[in-house]
Amino acid sequence: MGSGSFGTVFAKLLHDAGGEVTLWGRRAEVVEAINTRHENPDYLPGIELPAGVRATLDPAEALAGADFVALAVPAQTLRENLTQWVPALPPEAVLISLMKGVELGTTRRMSEVIREVADVPEERVAVFTGPNFAREMGTGQPCASVAACVDEDVAQRLQAASMTPYFRVYTSTDVIGCELGGAVKNIVALCVGVVVGLGFGDSTRALIMTRGLAEISRLGAALGADEHTFAGLAGMGDLIATCSSPLSRNRTFGENLGRGMTLEQVIAATKQTAEGVKSSEPVLELARKHNVEMPITEAVVNVLYRGMPIKDAAISLISRSPKPERYGV
Amino acid sequence: MGSGSFGTVFAKLLHDAGGEVTLWGRRAEVVEAINTRHENPDYLPGIELPAGVRATLDPAEALAGADFVALAVPAQTLRENLTQWVPALPPEAVLISLMKGVELGTTRRMSEVIREVADVPEERVAVFTGPNFAREMGTGQPCASVAACVDEDVAQRLQAASMTPYFRVYTSTDVIGCELGGAVKNIVALCVGVVVGLGFGDSTRALIMTRGLAEISRLGAALGADEHTFAGLAGMGDLIATCSSPLSRNRTFGENLGRGMTLEQVIAATKQTAEGVKSSEPVLELARKHNVEMPITEAVVNVLYRGMPIKDAAISLISRSPKPERYGV
Repeated sequence: MGSGSFGTVFAKLLHDAGGEVTLWGRRAEVVEAINTRHENPDYLPGIELPAGVRATLDPAEALAGADFVALAVPAQTLRENLTQWVPALPPEAVLISLMKGVELGTTRRMSEVIREVADVPEERVAVFTGPNFAREMGTGQPCASVAACVDEDVAQRLQAASMTPYFRVYTSTDVIGCELGGAVKNIVALCVGVVVGLGFGDSTRALIMTRGLAEISRLGAALGADEHTFAGLAGMGDLIATCSSPLSRNRTFGENLGRGMTLEQVIAATKQTAEGVKSSEPVLELARKHNVEMPITEAVVNVLYRGMPIKDAAISLISRSPKPERYGV
Repeated sequence: MGSGSFGTVFAKLLHDAGGEVTLWGRRAEVVEAINTRHENPDYLPGIELPAGVRATLDPAEALAGADFVALAVPAQTLRENLTQWVPALPPEAVLISLMKGVELGTTRRMSEVIREVADVPEERVAVFTGPNFAREMGTGQPCASVAACVDEDVAQRLQAASMTPYFRVYTSTDVIGCELGGAVKNIVALCVGVVVGLGFGDSTRALIMTRGLAEISRLGAALGADEHTFAGLAGMGDLIATCSSPLSRNRTFGENLGRGMTLEQVIAATKQTAEGVKSSEPVLELARKHNVEMPITEAVVNVLYRGMPIKDAAISLISRSPKPERYGV
């Protein structure tokens, strides 16, 4: 459900793994192009889709008889979209979240929104997440993800439905941890961008990524996640991919700040919103509610929303009190 | 003890943290340059050293009255060097390993060699490790490391002796985990190089790093390390820095292989040995001894020593049986 770049490439993956797939799209020209030219020219130009991936404008047609319903709409429109689709959901279908983010206002994770709106038990909600750029998946580069569901059997069914010769899928029962990694990584990527913009090298970048993951893990532990998840594909893997890619909007946003542009200039230069800008405040709020120290997130919020100069934020990070490497989990 | 790039920059760090430092060097011209020009032109050209960092050719002079003795010689010469220095070691000094590697033949970690040769209890051996490129440390870029010792008090003393406004130090009591991360990362970096050489992107690289860390963690768990260490600076952090740097010899070695050069051509083109080439076989041997699956290390060994074509090694990795993300720990 959703024919953006990731929804489209996930449809291709399920097809390549032997499934029968119908892709719902909002825009007639995209649906038409997928059905006739086997390409999604707006979101995945140049990637040939299998003829077996058919698209439709009718949600009910896409949902009819589905074993799995993969949701790939923007995080902030999920509630509205899913509300409309609920009457057409097959009663036994597993709902898969492909989305990374938290709902603004409620700070709910995507799987929580799904359970609430569709009124389904947690055994029928899965999360599919990992270090996957749609374009790289689309060209068949070796990739891997995690299929997570509190019900191990469901996770294994999703694994079987999505593994191909170019794509490995691992199972996990830690839905919270898998979702949190994807939702918080963008804040860390923004900070890595600042560091790159300031001209620092691989040591400092690796430091920010590692301590960024440490604070995500502390938040995760407070919310009931399994800490080990963060050392996996949904945590470290997704974080590395996002922080390494020069195409990441969050990293670019940070780089521009680090190079000395004012916040106003950076916002003016940024076409689509950088997710880390939106999510940094709610994540920090969540951390405070649970008494979790998240110094990198706090530094990002201070720079973005409280007018703190980057230099002062950097000093606040590096001059924290001496600590053991692992604490607060 | 050792005036290569890391020994030199660590001497600068201890000095910047308020310590009194004497650096031992093997080569007269390097010692002379450090004392007169405050520079190590061979290993750290262009980095100004503080006048307080003095160098000497006499090991006994460097060791006299030291609270900490930091060892920064090549991993494979540690045993020989330290044997000569033992008579001059201050009886209460803490011996710090700055070296990353395992001893060929014995597969011993550096701290094990130190304990054996110097005949000291484990409370007097510490490890200092993390994602630190000497040149970046030398220019005062924000960096961090882990000071590890089974005795928490000793780790904290080393932390206090090495923390500066540009360098954070965290403590850990997991010496085994801290050493293993640095010793095995080069094998993963070599594999990441192959992937880059084959033309794959950020998704595949992040996948190799993440699953590489998973197999290091499995080996660590079997050897008695704390699994959490691998999600920290000595594990994930060092791995990211090494795999991200285009200057890494191991990554470059792999890239040349991935681009289609034969093994003989790559070896001929490589001036200094890539550590991952040397350590892959002993690490795999260690893994087998402990019944640990290390598919990436095995693929590297198959390509380097058993004539397996890269394509077949890649297929062997991606077509393994479906698994939960976390197993064997």
